Amino acid sequence: MSRIAYVNGRYVPHRDATVHIEDRGYQFADGVYEVFAVLGGKLIGEQGHLDRLNHSLTELRIDWPLGRAALLVVCNEVQRRNHVQNGLIYLQITRGVAPRDHPFPVNVESALVVTARKTSPMDKEALSKGVEVMTVPDIRWQRCDIKSVALLPNILAKQQAREAGAFEAWQVDADGMVTEGTSTNAWIVTQEGELVTRDISNAILNGITRLAILEAAEEAGVKLNVRAFSVDEALQAKEAFVSSSTTHVKAVTRINGQSVGNGHAGELTLRMLDLYADYIKSHGGPEKTDTWN
Amino acid sequence: MSRIAYVNGRYVPHRDATVHIEDRGYQFADGVYEVFAVLGGKLIGEQGHLDRLNHSLTELRIDWPLGRAALLVVCNEVQRRNHVQNGLIYLQITRGVAPRDHPFPVNVESALVVTARKTSPMDKEALSKGVEVMTVPDIRWQRCDIKSVALLPNILAKQQAREAGAFEAWQVDADGMVTEGTSTNAWIVTQEGELVTRDISNAILNGITRLAILEAAEEAGVKLNVRAFSVDEALQAKEAFVSSSTTHVKAVTRINGQSVGNGHAGELTLRMLDLYADYIKSHGGPEKTDTWN
Repeated sequence: MSRIAYVNGRYVPHRDATVHIEDRGYQFADGVYEVFAVLGGKLIGEQGHLDRLNHSLTELRIDWPLGRAALLVVCNEVQRRNHVQNGLIYLQITRGVAPRDHPFPVNVESALVVTARKTSPMDKEALSKGVEVMTVPDIRWQRCDIKSVALLPNILAKQQAREAGAFEAWQVDADGMVTEGTSTNAWIVTQEGELVTRDISNAILNGITRLAILEAAEEAGVKLNVRAFSVDEALQAKEAFVSSSTTHVKAVTRINGQSVGNGHAGELTLRMLDLYADYIKSHGGPEKTDTWN
Repeated sequence: MSRIAYVNGRYVPHRDATVHIEDRGYQFADGVYEVFAVLGGKLIGEQGHLDRLNHSLTELRIDWPLGRAALLVVCNEVQRRNHVQNGLIYLQITRGVAPRDHPFPVNVESALVVTARKTSPMDKEALSKGVEVMTVPDIRWQRCDIKSVALLPNILAKQQAREAGAFEAWQVDADGMVTEGTSTNAWIVTQEGELVTRDISNAILNGITRLAILEAAEEAGVKLNVRAFSVDEALQAKEAFVSSSTTHVKAVTRINGQSVGNGHAGELTLRMLDLYADYIKSHGGPEKTDTWN
């Protein structure tokens, strides 16, 4: 059965899904996106993703192409038409099609694309196997709170990591502090057993999975410290992991070639994976998603 | 007569010219571009643009979709089919179409789009009328030497300038030094009559028009100083202008609401406009285009 994509009002075969060459997403990276995890046929964190989307669109002054409710209908319809039980729904909104010129065009409708992809179900064994991360300088722009499609620095860092045998690159700011991965948030557990992830600012994207993990940790009474941590601190950490809609909670067992803790997925990491899975099952996603910066 | 675009091997009506929604240019800003001025039916600075394109492609490890000579044939054919005597040829190359995933895809051909647009011929009177620029913080990534389509910060700054009644935004680095405009290079003339523009580095794009102006200035014995200048220095300057393939040499007569010099296009600015026009007529574009950083 062929995949179906939604493009500006029409459901079309994925292979035939196109946008105009003067869509500003193509010529200027003038657009934003969201990726919903689908687990057991359900989109996870719907409201959180839409709240963050609202932040991105507001900051860039791009109009919603559809109202929130209608957009969710489309996303769920794409999930349904593609029979996705486990996988992803990707949505992208750009400022629309206009003759190439830097300033915002007037009277142009924003463009909407929604696609679906099947993946394996959440596999706790695979997630707890442990991956390596490497650290790289964070060379991105200064508005990483906006989930824009201007992802060129992210893909360069991800590629660099993969070629070095690492799963992910942790980007490091001028002060030596880890900002985030290229498509994941970064977490450590200190020797004192405290769960640490960077506080939100223009320097990182506030992950929906990050938020759900924080809420799950709070609910379970896990010791939390939301603050920046340095590369040195990460190298001395007891545990580490990354989070995102596609990686959930994924154990990090090596950083820059050095073992983290005992070199195996940490105890709290595995507990957070369980707590997160339970939390999104019972809550559907994070609940405190009203502030984005 | 309808406009014609070139898209991945085919000449198609501009209005029907599309790319796949999973072209990495659309989803990741994973691509680069060049804009050739067309004057009197001729593409200006062909070799310079191709040398810079080579720098961008090499840095991003994107393959040439066609050889240099074949690419020029396509650009000239797009110019010819669109009967452009004065205007622009825009070319964009992306890493190609692949299922969405951050790392570079393997065995994927890069994608090529070429479009044309007519504009008025170079109008010295209009260019010497003088425009305003405003200064804004440079929030872009740290590889502005690569002419990538990740232009979101540029369009935000350009829009901010236009809404403030300015033609262009001059971006300012953390040290208070002007880097460049959002789609132009920045120039001043000091009270001592020295022509100043920023030296190349990862902080700016090395403009083809910038290079031609530098060569024309050198040939004419104009006093040159290729170095960074501060906002304060710009406010005290005798003259100022911006340069690009689309603006040529365009007088700047106000910065942040303050008059530059006597508030009219400067003497050296007008001379540089003439020298530049003569230089590209006789040389076709800049000649020293072998280093890009």
